[in-house]
Amino acid sequence: MNKKPSLFTSLSPALLHLFDLHNTVVVIVDVFRATTTIAAALYNGAARVIPVAEVEECKRLGNEIIGSITAGEREGKVIEGLQYGNSPTEYPREFIENKTLVLTTTNGTKLLHMAFAKGCAEVVTGSFANLSAVCNYLIKQDKNVILGCSGWKDRFNLEDTLFAGAVINRVKEHFIIHDDSSLMANEMFRRHQNNLYEFIQHTTHWHRLATYGLQKDLEYCVSFDVANVLPVFTNGELIAR
Amino acid sequence: MNKKPSLFTSLSPALLHLFDLHNTVVVIVDVFRATTTIAAALYNGAARVIPVAEVEECKRLGNEIIGSITAGEREGKVIEGLQYGNSPTEYPREFIENKTLVLTTTNGTKLLHMAFAKGCAEVVTGSFANLSAVCNYLIKQDKNVILGCSGWKDRFNLEDTLFAGAVINRVKEHFIIHDDSSLMANEMFRRHQNNLYEFIQHTTHWHRLATYGLQKDLEYCVSFDVANVLPVFTNGELIAR
Repeated sequence: MNKKPSLFTSLSPALLHLFDLHNTVVVIVDVFRATTTIAAALYNGAARVIPVAEVEECKRLGNEIIGSITAGEREGKVIEGLQYGNSPTEYPREFIENKTLVLTTTNGTKLLHMAFAKGCAEVVTGSFANLSAVCNYLIKQDKNVILGCSGWKDRFNLEDTLFAGAVINRVKEHFIIHDDSSLMANEMFRRHQNNLYEFIQHTTHWHRLATYGLQKDLEYCVSFDVANVLPVFTNGELIAR
Repeated sequence: MNKKPSLFTSLSPALLHLFDLHNTVVVIVDVFRATTTIAAALYNGAARVIPVAEVEECKRLGNEIIGSITAGEREGKVIEGLQYGNSPTEYPREFIENKTLVLTTTNGTKLLHMAFAKGCAEVVTGSFANLSAVCNYLIKQDKNVILGCSGWKDRFNLEDTLFAGAVINRVKEHFIIHDDSSLMANEMFRRHQNNLYEFIQHTTHWHRLATYGLQKDLEYCVSFDVANVLPVFTNGELIAR
C-alpha cells in the first residue's frame, strides 16, 4: 500500500515559511473576498484573472491588455482610477465572459505570490464557492498539500480557517493529517457547518465588511459550490481548469 | 463608565509582532511544559526561576549561583551537563525550596525574552496549574492583555490555545475581546473543558512527549490550579507574587 500524502494548514502568511512547499500543492484561501471573487469571475467565463499587489500595476495592466477590467477596493470602496470592486456578485457572465480581470487585493494576492516563489508543485485558490472543485482536485493529485490561509494583515481569521476545515472534513481519508491547526480547523468547521452564515457574523472581518454594507457579499462567500471551478495560478495569472 | 481594556491572543511567537505590547500585560503560555514547571517550582518555594535560551548559559549560571539547580531537556532526556529535566513533578518542596532553578527550554524562554524586549507593562507566565492566579491578576490590573502562546517551533499548538481559551472564558466580562484567535480559543476550550486530558491525546505535542514516556507529566499539565501562584518576569528572572 502506498503511503498517503500529508496535509498541513498554515493559519497565516506569517507562518507559511514553517512548511516545506517543495513538490506540494498549495491552496490559497481568502474567503472574504479575493478567492471567492476569483472563483466567481472564472466560473462566469472570465478568460483569466491577474492578481496584483499594487494599484499602479493594476492600472498599467488595465491599459495594456485589451478587453481587461481593473478591480480593487480599499475600505469597501472602489479604488480611484480602477473600474470595479472586489465583490463576487459584480461579475456575472454577461459582463465578464472572455474578459481579463486585473484584481488587486490586500491579503490573498500577497500569499499567492509568496507560495509561487517557493517552488511548490502547483498553486490553486479555494473558497466555499468552489469547495468541491478544490477537494476533488486534491484527492486526485496524490501530493502533499498546504492549505494557506490569508488571514487579515497576517492575523489569524476564522473564515479562512473554517474553509480549511471544510476541505479537511472532505479529504481527510486520503491524507495523513497530524497538525494541530488542521485538527482545530476541522473541529471548528464541523461545529459550525450548519450555521456558517450566522456564525461568521461573530468574526472580526464580518464586522469590518458589514460596516461597508457588504452583508450580501458575505452570504455569497459562505455558500457552497456556487462557482465550482478550479482556479490554477500559472505565469502570473489564474485560469480555470 | 470607564472603557474596558482589550484582550488579544497571539497564536505563535511568529505572530507576536502584530500586536501592540506598549503598556500591556503579556501572559506567556507554554503548557507542555515550561510554564507549568515554572509554576510548580515557584509554588513549591523556589526562590526564583531563571529562564535561559542556551545550554551553555544555563551551565554558566549554575556554576555562578550558590544553591542553584540547572535543568533542561532535549527530546525527553536531561541535557548532558545539566542536573534535572523539564518535568513539573521533579520539583517538590523538600527539594526546590529556597533554591534557584536555572531552566533552559525550547519555546517558552524565547517568547519570554521577546515580550520583555518590546516594552510591555509586565510579563507573567500562565498554565492550567496556575489558571486562577493568572485570571485574578488580569482582572485586577485593568490593562490591555496579550495571551502569548509559545507553540512548537513557531507552529500553532492546541494546548496553549486551550489555556488561552480557559483564561478568556474566565475573564471575558472584564475585557473587550474582538479577535478571531480569542473567539476560536474560547470555543475550543468550552468544547473540551470537561475532557481536556482525553482531548489533548489527539494533539501533535502529546504524541511527541508520550513517546518519551511523559504521560504523567501531561496529566499534571492539564490539571487546574495545582500550583496556583503568579510567576512575574523581572530583571531576567521569574519570581512568585
